Amino acid sequence: MRRSDRVEAPYAYEGLDRMFHEKARLSIVTVLAGHADGLSFTELKSLCGLTDGNLSRHLQGLEEADYLEIEKRYEGRRPCTRSRLSALGRVRFLEYLAVLEKVLREATKAAAGVGVPSELQPARRR
Amino acid sequence: MRRSDRVEAPYAYEGLDRMFHEKARLSIVTVLAGHADGLSFTELKSLCGLTDGNLSRHLQGLEEADYLEIEKRYEGRRPCTRSRLSALGRVRFLEYLAVLEKVLREATKAAAGVGVPSELQPARRR
Repeated sequence: MRRSDRVEAPYAYEGLDRMFHEKARLSIVTVLAGHADGLSFTELKSLCGLTDGNLSRHLQGLEEADYLEIEKRYEGRRPCTRSRLSALGRVRFLEYLAVLEKVLREATKAAAGVGVPSELQPARRR
Repeated sequence: MRRSDRVEAPYAYEGLDRMFHEKARLSIVTVLAGHADGLSFTELKSLCGLTDGNLSRHLQGLEEADYLEIEKRYEGRRPCTRSRLSALGRVRFLEYLAVLEKVLREATKAAAGVGVPSELQPARRR
């Protein structure tokens, strides 16, 4: 598909960067956004509920996109990595969140526009 | 990973149903949520900016999850399919949007908690 075709599609959501939108990476980046000093592999693993393999793979992808800085060092004899959101990663993440907010608003409006039988409506969560 | 491990991870985002979260399907379902009478394949294709193959594949996945009803008929000699969000699909989508709203709130709070140099801040989009 040519770029010109996609730009005309109002629901193509071009700005929804897949690097952040993927569920596991959204979790990792949200946690890191709140921890400016970074987090260890073990801390990230337990906060995000990911396996070693999955977390490694996603951290590597985020680092390759320059969204993450990973510092490798030794604590005594144990290797220890610390991941931190880069300045670029933080900026792009804020841009992603702005697009996501717009998508959420559109979707909520669309979904609310059509009546749902009351017995089928989900309980409101607050 | 055992289910009990994941439930304890505060950022695991269990409720973020991948069936809706994937970018192309989020686009398809948002469009369908706003069109109670359903849409043709051609209409969906142009609104979502997807290729034939991608759209087919995602519609099939959504139908297999019982989130979609696909009606196949002929208009004259041309085969024509019409896709419509099912009652179950609409309910699950509303649940997904409620979780997404919570995730967005958390992420925005986390990202705002750490200062970003003003020259790096994205322009506000409204």
